[in-house]
Amino acid sequence: MAIGVIATLKVQSGKGQEFEKVFGELAGQVRANEAGNKLYQVFKSRKDPDAYVVMEIYQDQPALEAHGKSDHFKAAGPKLGPTLAGRPDVLYLDSV
Amino acid sequence: MAIGVIATLKVQSGKGQEFEKVFGELAGQVRANEAGNKLYQVFKSRKDPDAYVVMEIYQDQPALEAHGKSDHFKAAGPKLGPTLAGRPDVLYLDSV
Repeated sequence: MAIGVIATLKVQSGKGQEFEKVFGELAGQVRANEAGNKLYQVFKSRKDPDAYVVMEIYQDQPALEAHGKSDHFKAAGPKLGPTLAGRPDVLYLDSV
Repeated sequence: MAIGVIATLKVQSGKGQEFEKVFGELAGQVRANEAGNKLYQVFKSRKDPDAYVVMEIYQDQPALEAHGKSDHFKAAGPKLGPTLAGRPDVLYLDSV
């Protein structure tokens, strides 16, 4: 059963461009290396210019876990951290 | 530029199955009839058994507007309404 993830990330004012650069690289690595990932797309909120929302779909729970353990995901953390204004809010969903 | 939509819908307790049936039909009609729709997938929240989350992606603003004006979307409203516990919460996003 497919799994959805919606991650909301708030960036520090003025750090949006840096966030987009790092996140764009991460998204490319996810698409290139994770066969179990079906969607990994980052959007900008229309309401809050400092909020980004990532839509993610994985084919199953193991694919989601493989994402969290991947080298590219772990390597992105220290680069994304300094752009963020707080902890990401992550919502886990099961496909219907 | 692609547009993302995240719609959160709360159903009345016990109405989940009916909601899923009506929404499943709608999703099929969206996929079959809206060339500008790139994703229309409904998920169930892991935290709240009465909450559903729809991930939607449109190729552009006209595609989003065509969705809202479509006969199948308008026809689904009166069928979905009686299953819901309140107004849907809809978040509009621009792709990065």
